[in-house]
Amino acid sequence: MPHLNLEYSDNLRKLNVDVLLLRLNHALVGSGQFADEADIKSRAEAFRHFRVGTSPGERAFVHVRLAILSGRSPEVKTLLSSSLLDVLREAIPARPGLDIQLCVEVLDIDREPYAKLRLPG
Amino acid sequence: MPHLNLEYSDNLRKLNVDVLLLRLNHALVGSGQFADEADIKSRAEAFRHFRVGTSPGERAFVHVRLAILSGRSPEVKTLLSSSLLDVLREAIPARPGLDIQLCVEVLDIDREPYAKLRLPG
Amino acid sequence: MPHLNLEYSDNLRKLNVDVLLLRLNHALVGSGQFADEADIKSRAEAFRHFRVGTSPGERAFVHVRLAILSGRSPEVKTLLSSSLLDVLREAIPARPGLDIQLCVEVLDIDREPYAKLRLPG
Repeated sequence: MPHLNLEYSDNLRKLNVDVLLLRLNHALVGSGQFADEADIKSRAEAFRHFRVGTSPGERAFVHVRLAILSGRSPEVKTLLSSSLLDVLREAIPARPGLDIQLCVEVLDIDREPYAKLRLPG
Repeated sequence: MPHLNLEYSDNLRKLNVDVLLLRLNHALVGSGQFADEADIKSRAEAFRHFRVGTSPGERAFVHVRLAILSGRSPEVKTLLSSSLLDVLREAIPARPGLDIQLCVEVLDIDREPYAKLRLPG
Repeated sequence: MPHLNLEYSDNLRKLNVDVLLLRLNHALVGSGQFADEADIKSRAEAFRHFRVGTSPGERAFVHVRLAILSGRSPEVKTLLSSSLLDVLREAIPARPGLDIQLCVEVLDIDREPYAKLRLPG
């Protein structure tokens, strides 16, 4: 906890996704909501097969799902999504001819059955 | 919003997934639940590593997860899942020797922290 | 139902993911919670682009998301996550120089709109 999944359409070819993941993690650390930076587990996936709407124009999307243990207030969640959207906005400029949607979702992980083990290596 | 994830086992090799995504999006537009067709962001992923159950027979699955902003009634959600399952059924015929499961799940996106930005290009 | 998604960082190169999926499915069958073993649909995905935290040390994660139809008790969910974590622990040994996190999450599928069709082949 937290888990972050970054999903995006692969017509955003110039996206430096490793840098983006690190920036998203820094934004989460900067929120002060997570005790240990190492807890933040982020991953990204580009989708080759996607479809935005039904019209023929070229479109793209970036979707961040942030899953955190249940119990945080709506205000805290809104601050988190807002700071993650800021990171997306800085990393992904508008592009002529491409309609891009940036989205951030925050969802709860049911705290009680969540099980975790760390193997420090 | 909405976000649709189509996950399937890659032993369904002849699936035309781009056509399927477009048909799923048309079904969502046809539901009258979404103001702007461009809001529908659908993507598909084939899984090379999968396992259905524990028995040795060949099996396959297709799973649609539709995530919509919270607040819709159970009746509306059931209509949505039912119309998406109809699309799957038309696109995916039974195959001798292959046990296929088609599933549609509807889940809520927490409305309050959901953040979005559109860069029209 | 149930659906299991195994996500992991692809620096866990020696992971035999097909064997692991089968073991996870056997643990679910062994729980006695699922009437038909064939209902268990598990899939795995390795992430090439991932980032754990913000520090430079090498880190890895394995995350199981188990989605089951709503209605089960917290105790049952905790038993399920605990038995899945046991499987992960047996399959994934500690590795010198690599900080590994193993996580299991259990989440509900909204029962009412869930739609399913089986094509027995």
